[in-house]
Amino acid sequence: MKSARIISVGDEVLSGRIINTNSSYLANELTKIGFSISKHIAIGDSYLSIEDEIDNFLISKDKIVLVTGGLGPTHDDFTKEAVSKKLNLKLELRQEALDLLDNYFDGNQAKSDYKQAYFPVGSILIPNRLGTAEGLIIEHEGKTIVLLVGPPHENQPMMEKYVIPYLKKTIMTNILKKEYLVMGKSESHCEDLLSPLYKKLINVAVNPYGSIGRIKFEIKGLNKYIDEFNQVCFEFEKIMDKFIISDNYDTIEDRVISLLKEKGYLISFAESCTGGMLASMLISISGASNVLSESFITYSESAKEKFLKVNKETIDKYGVVSFEVCEEMVKGLKSLTKADVCVSVSGLAGPTGETDSLKIGDICYSIFVDNLLITEKKNFKGTRDLIRTKASFWILYRIFGLLTYGK
Amino acid sequence: MKSARIISVGDEVLSGRIINTNSSYLANELTKIGFSISKHIAIGDSYLSIEDEIDNFLISKDKIVLVTGGLGPTHDDFTKEAVSKKLNLKLELRQEALDLLDNYFDGNQAKSDYKQAYFPVGSILIPNRLGTAEGLIIEHEGKTIVLLVGPPHENQPMMEKYVIPYLKKTIMTNILKKEYLVMGKSESHCEDLLSPLYKKLINVAVNPYGSIGRIKFEIKGLNKYIDEFNQVCFEFEKIMDKFIISDNYDTIEDRVISLLKEKGYLISFAESCTGGMLASMLISISGASNVLSESFITYSESAKEKFLKVNKETIDKYGVVSFEVCEEMVKGLKSLTKADVCVSVSGLAGPTGETDSLKIGDICYSIFVDNLLITEKKNFKGTRDLIRTKASFWILYRIFGLLTYGK
Repeated sequence: MKSARIISVGDEVLSGRIINTNSSYLANELTKIGFSISKHIAIGDSYLSIEDEIDNFLISKDKIVLVTGGLGPTHDDFTKEAVSKKLNLKLELRQEALDLLDNYFDGNQAKSDYKQAYFPVGSILIPNRLGTAEGLIIEHEGKTIVLLVGPPHENQPMMEKYVIPYLKKTIMTNILKKEYLVMGKSESHCEDLLSPLYKKLINVAVNPYGSIGRIKFEIKGLNKYIDEFNQVCFEFEKIMDKFIISDNYDTIEDRVISLLKEKGYLISFAESCTGGMLASMLISISGASNVLSESFITYSESAKEKFLKVNKETIDKYGVVSFEVCEEMVKGLKSLTKADVCVSVSGLAGPTGETDSLKIGDICYSIFVDNLLITEKKNFKGTRDLIRTKASFWILYRIFGLLTYGK
Repeated sequence: MKSARIISVGDEVLSGRIINTNSSYLANELTKIGFSISKHIAIGDSYLSIEDEIDNFLISKDKIVLVTGGLGPTHDDFTKEAVSKKLNLKLELRQEALDLLDNYFDGNQAKSDYKQAYFPVGSILIPNRLGTAEGLIIEHEGKTIVLLVGPPHENQPMMEKYVIPYLKKTIMTNILKKEYLVMGKSESHCEDLLSPLYKKLINVAVNPYGSIGRIKFEIKGLNKYIDEFNQVCFEFEKIMDKFIISDNYDTIEDRVISLLKEKGYLISFAESCTGGMLASMLISISGASNVLSESFITYSESAKEKFLKVNKETIDKYGVVSFEVCEEMVKGLKSLTKADVCVSVSGLAGPTGETDSLKIGDICYSIFVDNLLITEKKNFKGTRDLIRTKASFWILYRIFGLLTYGK
């Protein structure tokens, strides 16, 4: 696999004023066509830093470097100049670039724009349809140097239309990749379960990427190891079994919506501490209107009584975060909406309100589906919003389980 | 000014699967307390790459390196191990870390979790309250090495609570800083308004940091330029005036909650396309229970009719995204909840459903407060979720305006 590095040039990235989305975009594009990425680097608008990094690239094992930024008309744009100097290439005026400038400005270009029409001898010009600075490709002693402009909305079309097709011609790697979404187990518990499989890996990699309440596992190997790859996928599926939510890039929200659609079910929520987050997660998916008609945020005790007909006595006796209140909430919701799947949530997201019997992060929920009513309690750690988010994902995971396995 | 570099460890960043927000966050935090940043680097989960980068740091002029990622329990987490090896430090079991693990898991930790309780001799432990892997600080021959976990929601509190105070003690810079939250104007329109002020800046910097629907302006200068600093703040406030939401780090959610509390008001929403997002944003703030009792997600037409008593004829005649429907929604909500502030939203978040008269991103909303009913329509650009988020922030901004200025 040929390896590549990515360099972002610009003070605004370095100081943290803007998030460097270029590196991830470019890495993603390169990975898709079979490159491995060795490194991302971000440096400031400094002639010396650019020269240094070109030196580092030339002595590295990487075959390709993608550099973004510093191609514009201003006094602090000099990526092209620094790179050309380092590679001992003269800059020449290109008619093609002059024409593009003329076209962009309808002849009204400023003096400083002309700088952008000079290119190192032998380089390939990459037209930029959305801005004034063009990019370029330099082939140098078996290595490829690609210079692109900084703004993502300009460099992405340049990448898609010119750079990717160019690079595809120069390489022919085939990568096998499969991605699994796993929920319901912590990353470390997955690690324990998977450790016998990990010990057997030779040419195939299994990498976990954890995020709040979810873990993505990526299984990857070269085409020539397809048997080993398939065997690893097979064993992974056997081990993780019901904890696998999807193997086709679907999110948990996608999966829940699909399951509801398949069954022709409507879902409705009565949310207290999650406060609309659960409904909002589903509504973030286009097509949610097929499965969700209405949903309620009953945050106060009086709202639970008024809209869901929860008994005041139940709240007084068991507390608002209790099995009993959750069950009354879900039953009230069912008679209000007649939805096929009814879900209630009540919990303490903190940071205040803790008592001897109720801890911060204690979340109680009921799910009513197919004449089955389950009520469970679980504790989540973290800040107020983390607790709410973890609880929401967990409840979606439970809904998924009930719709898929009936438990 | 002391210089620092930032290293992100993790295949998921390197391959572009996730955007590296850690580097910009950390760069920003370090810049705030007076460091200059020399470089960001992202490398994969590779022992050798980590060792190489520690070498590069040790021979560089930088005084501080912040490394994120690779501290977890899995087989591909070995930042701590590689750094310790490079610095010739043995790993020892720390009781403090064992206790934190015990506490986090209530005794149910997996075998692979124990790895996280080993620390290099002499290092300072940075507790992680939101996850299982702790961070650490190593002082080594006049240089500081800080290792943090990868997930932003975990490493940001570690940074704020431990690393920043630690670094502040070691550098003694006195920086004056003020931060303004601005809404209701785009970044480029602010730029135009502020350009006369920008031209006058000598020793004080004014930096905008845009995020969805909001802009943070940071005004910064050294202590010795306090008169200029105060003058710039004064002029900034004069120019941005009513577009300033807060000058004390309060978010728009904080501000709306505070205003409602001050007035003793309850708020309630009837959300269609935002689907619970608005209520959830307010409920993310502790103390929301004082101002929000209940809220409704009336996503389907039938839900609008059933719960909010919107007339079917109104929907048929004007369409569901219309002034007329929004007004009927908000009036229905008012009679249902009697809340002091009632807000309805109906819009087309896309990606499908566009017609000649209704564009994707068209959002209609009504706000009913103090006997004033306003209904407005606005178009937001972007993906489905971006449209929903922008609309939610915009509506919070309008609620803020109505509560503060009565318009």
